[in-house]
Amino acid sequence: MEKHALIVAGGSGNRMGSNVPKQFLLLNGLPVLMHTMNRFWHFDNKMDQTLVLPEAQFAYWQQLCVQFQFKVPHRLVAGGSVRFNSVKNGLASISGDGLVAIHDGVRPLVSRPTLLRCFEMAREKGNAIPALPLIETLREVSPEANQAADRSRFVGIQTPQVFDVKLIKEAYSLPYNPAFTDDAMVLEQLGRPINLVDGNRENIKITHASDLDIAAALWHLVE
Amino acid sequence: MEKHALIVAGGSGNRMGSNVPKQFLLLNGLPVLMHTMNRFWHFDNKMDQTLVLPEAQFAYWQQLCVQFQFKVPHRLVAGGSVRFNSVKNGLASISGDGLVAIHDGVRPLVSRPTLLRCFEMAREKGNAIPALPLIETLREVSPEANQAADRSRFVGIQTPQVFDVKLIKEAYSLPYNPAFTDDAMVLEQLGRPINLVDGNRENIKITHASDLDIAAALWHLVE
Repeated sequence: MEKHALIVAGGSGNRMGSNVPKQFLLLNGLPVLMHTMNRFWHFDNKMDQTLVLPEAQFAYWQQLCVQFQFKVPHRLVAGGSVRFNSVKNGLASISGDGLVAIHDGVRPLVSRPTLLRCFEMAREKGNAIPALPLIETLREVSPEANQAADRSRFVGIQTPQVFDVKLIKEAYSLPYNPAFTDDAMVLEQLGRPINLVDGNRENIKITHASDLDIAAALWHLVE
Repeated sequence: MEKHALIVAGGSGNRMGSNVPKQFLLLNGLPVLMHTMNRFWHFDNKMDQTLVLPEAQFAYWQQLCVQFQFKVPHRLVAGGSVRFNSVKNGLASISGDGLVAIHDGVRPLVSRPTLLRCFEMAREKGNAIPALPLIETLREVSPEANQAADRSRFVGIQTPQVFDVKLIKEAYSLPYNPAFTDDAMVLEQLGRPINLVDGNRENIKITHASDLDIAAALWHLVE
């Protein structure tokens, strides 16, 4: 069954501010985004890769690819104003069927076992997403009050989220809802049950500058 | 107003297994637990400190104190079979009133501003706990199914959790409930509203060996 990777980095150019976007920061001497794409390449070097980036970052990315002699073949697709539109644009560029792994460009620590679990479950059941138990105590807040929530009833969700290509394209043809925080929520609109597999704890999302130091510390732990 | 710190480390000796308990592992050359107690000492060196440890670890701890010339004055109290009993034992050793900060021994990265916010809010309202927005997408799971949960309705809770001494002693006189995962949940049984203040993201709980590497990476970021 054909496998695709859809790597999404930077919902919109206006997040850039005055700083270098997180996906281009160096981790062990290589831009974060290249590490991420290398993970998929090493997992399966026949996988079709699509990178969704804000169009304003295309030239910079192409310059980085030359500078770092980046060899992973990929299509470059322009992102939209919000993540939903970026994923939708990326999906439109994928022809054929099979499975697609939608993954945050700033999660360079996804492990090979996590990728394997996601693809195997998705092959069997049409979708799979990686989940982890919560470590911290959880409270539910409202404008008026807050109360303890039973953390054992919840899991934290990462990426890659792997889907049957036709199914996720159908879900993304439905209207955008600002409540979507991941792709599984989009698919859920079709009434499909979502399948959870174990993630790997190191697979953090690089959102703060200090996360780069954490990622460097975790690097040697990831297969 | 008098300030107390109640540092809780290791619910029971049987967690030790064959490995050194996390609270004794070295971080930048010093046992994690000493870093934690140093944080409170540097915040206020007149603060009364109580350390709750499994009794089986007393001798080892005292040996570490000599070896590392650890000078923070503290009372040593024997822990119970579960965390609830450990905290209860610690509280029983505190005389007088004022405020008590109940803190995980394996959170050596609590910042001075977090301590300040907790004590100031608790002085004003009787209790305060540090909270942080969730980064990962959240799903609610049941044996039958799972569904997206709105992560903006939830926060993750850390320690120190600071309380009026009399109030938290009263709460801990009520029966134990295995659903308790923190001290605020115990106080909540009295019908008291819980006050949230901002925590600091670096204030992680050292639960896995790899968390030590993370803590070392974050060390320089904490005031």
